[in-house]
Amino acid sequence: MGVHLQEAMRRAVDESDKVRGSTSPNPPVGAVVLDVAGAVVGVGATQPPGGPHAEVMALRDAGERAYGGSIIVTLEPCDHFGRTPPCSQAIIDAGIAQVHYAVADPVSYAAGGARTLARAGVAVTTWHDATPVTQGPLRAWLHRQRTGRPHFTYKYAASLDGRSAAADGSSQWISGDQSRARDRAERSKIDAIVVGTGTVLADNPWLTARNPDGSLTDHQPVRVVVGTRPIPPEARVCDDAAPTVFVRSRNIDDVVEALKDHVDVVVEGGPHLAGAFFKAGMVDRITAYVAPVILGSGTSAVVDAGVGNIADAKRFHCESVSLLGDDVLISLVPR
Amino acid sequence: MGVHLQEAMRRAVDESDKVRGSTSPNPPVGAVVLDVAGAVVGVGATQPPGGPHAEVMALRDAGERAYGGSIIVTLEPCDHFGRTPPCSQAIIDAGIAQVHYAVADPVSYAAGGARTLARAGVAVTTWHDATPVTQGPLRAWLHRQRTGRPHFTYKYAASLDGRSAAADGSSQWISGDQSRARDRAERSKIDAIVVGTGTVLADNPWLTARNPDGSLTDHQPVRVVVGTRPIPPEARVCDDAAPTVFVRSRNIDDVVEALKDHVDVVVEGGPHLAGAFFKAGMVDRITAYVAPVILGSGTSAVVDAGVGNIADAKRFHCESVSLLGDDVLISLVPR
Ligand SMILES: NC(=O)c1ccc[n+]([C@@H]2O[C@H](COP(=O)([O-])OP(=O)(O)OC[C@H]3O[C@@H](n4cnc5c(N)ncnc54)[C@H](OP(=O)(O)O)[C@@H]3O)[C@@H](O)[C@H]2O)c1
Ligand SMILES: NC(=O)c1ccc[n+]([C@@H]2O[C@H](COP(=O)([O-])OP(=O)(O)OC[C@H]3O[C@@H](n4cnc5c(N)ncnc54)[C@H](OP(=O)(O)O)[C@@H]3O)[C@@H](O)[C@H]2O)c1
Repeated sequence: MGVHLQEAMRRAVDESDKVRGSTSPNPPVGAVVLDVAGAVVGVGATQPPGGPHAEVMALRDAGERAYGGSIIVTLEPCDHFGRTPPCSQAIIDAGIAQVHYAVADPVSYAAGGARTLARAGVAVTTWHDATPVTQGPLRAWLHRQRTGRPHFTYKYAASLDGRSAAADGSSQWISGDQSRARDRAERSKIDAIVVGTGTVLADNPWLTARNPDGSLTDHQPVRVVVGTRPIPPEARVCDDAAPTVFVRSRNIDDVVEALKDHVDVVVEGGPHLAGAFFKAGMVDRITAYVAPVILGSGTSAVVDAGVGNIADAKRFHCESVSLLGDDVLISLVPR
Repeated sequence: MGVHLQEAMRRAVDESDKVRGSTSPNPPVGAVVLDVAGAVVGVGATQPPGGPHAEVMALRDAGERAYGGSIIVTLEPCDHFGRTPPCSQAIIDAGIAQVHYAVADPVSYAAGGARTLARAGVAVTTWHDATPVTQGPLRAWLHRQRTGRPHFTYKYAASLDGRSAAADGSSQWISGDQSRARDRAERSKIDAIVVGTGTVLADNPWLTARNPDGSLTDHQPVRVVVGTRPIPPEARVCDDAAPTVFVRSRNIDDVVEALKDHVDVVVEGGPHLAGAFFKAGMVDRITAYVAPVILGSGTSAVVDAGVGNIADAKRFHCESVSLLGDDVLISLVPR
């Protein structure tokens, strides 16, 4: 495996990550074109719905230099006339000799790009390690293809003793600068953000995605407030910075139904709503920012998850652990 | 820096770690002797009080092959006639040409070994990186030399949401096999283990160090029970497997006083005693086993640490983070 190919796939994954959030319900895909000599001559990623796919963007970027070269793409090229012509045809037309893709397209009506390409004499190879894509930028989209519902991440920041607020209710800031910057950046890449009425009534949050300078980012996730209590119209979530959906229910199925057109959803809490998501078995990933502090009092991050004893604990598997400044960032998936 | 020297220091640290717990109040030290060609010819570690020091053990192991060679040792060789003759003299007598030591001896009456050796024509070098020793096997001993009191580690196992027991009180097992094995091994290497009366009355623990087969290890930490409620004589901590000290007080200063002859002490909880240690500023390290589970109810690991709001949080610094099976092991020190 050439170093330039490895590098190209890494770049394709990075490019696809950049457009995450702006492509739903389409998958965020990245593509890199190498010329005959193996030099990067084109880079592209999926444009918002109705716009070109990643392959077309990368081929346009490469122009004539694509001829006889290769394209490295995170998802199997589509073979389907939808809002855009099939990428398989664009690749053939550009004179690409070799295609490497990380993940086979799971959508039956679009799949088959690899076969069409092979029939046209293009060498098609599946990548040896799809996990940077399946656990990364395409994770939520693949999950939705598989299950027919959005991918829910429960995200929280807590002390070592699991508290997401101190005794007086203060929670600014438990986690450090780097964690909060990552979290801010992440918010602009998701489709929806969910909280309970308790969090809105207690904290009056904006729940908007912001740039480091405080301005609103172009893409805003839909704000979702779950619970039966009324939210006063002067609450910040009612402003026009982003759309807001009220799910006036305590049934998690109703939340899933209300979000059925979304792909990548983050549950921000608070503790009771988080508990209800765990109880319903509706947490597909946990993103935990564990701060190196002890509080000893204040709300625990998760309350009332329907667990009576250790045997019933909701068990997860650590997918990754890293230090982010002085916080520990843990990513977990259900066992 | 030769690879054989690096390897020798690593070995010396490992050897010293093996005797941790058996040398108090003396430091657990490791030593490795290399012959003229750089081959390992002797290995040694501190013997229990009254027995030979690490250097003497390693020199004995090497015999005549030490002549003209080097000795790599985790602590500066002593220069003091105590229960044993000075190691500096033993090194000179053995004809060692070069000494490498990681940490300077902080005890004034014993220090000076390096000077004596240099005067005798031995080349003496301090090691470029003492942290594997200062954060490792000599940590507690150095802390006691510096502060005049034992080193307290608060050790706990908890869920992601910071609970050390489920709603019904069950806590077996929150953490996984590997964490428990490490914890068991660690218990045989400390001087004392501290719990509150609440833990004894609720769980009736043995608090003994055991081999993987369940038998008692040779070295047992002193069991310390803190609190004013009486403990029934049939409680397991009252058996004769290990000595037990009762500190009938709620003042952490009294605990420190009762343990003044000890070096390396682990506070196992429960939550109220842990809170009191944090409140008293008496936690020198946190060893956290964070299990990848959500409980949503049950006791939090730390209760009542005297923190009212985020600004007053007890702040620590992550010294290391690793995966241990499916648990996250975090080691933290005060900020
Ligand atoms: N640091 C952090 O990461 C973080 C994040 C968020 C919140 N918080 C803290 O959490 C605190 C608020 O706690 P909270 O528990 O009241 O907040 P919450 O979980 O956001 O809201 C609780 C409400 O959610 C509604 N709900 C919807 N479905 C439910 C279900 N199946 N089961 C139970 N409730 C359901 C109920 O509303 P109705 O009663 O209206 O029906 C319930 O009262 C605040 O102090 C806030 O600062 C911290
Ligand atoms: N998973 C784990 O790592 C773990 C470890 C240990 C315990 N636990 C759980 O913790 C639970 C017991 O909780 P707990 O809080 O009662 O246990 P605890 O902290 O061991 O005991 C509390 C008692 O400690 C005494 N104490 C001494 N100094 C104190 C001070 N300065 N402030 C407050 N109390 C002081 C008091 O005893 P007096 O009232 O007698 O004066 C107090 O009642 C059990 O369910 C046990 O399973 C879990």
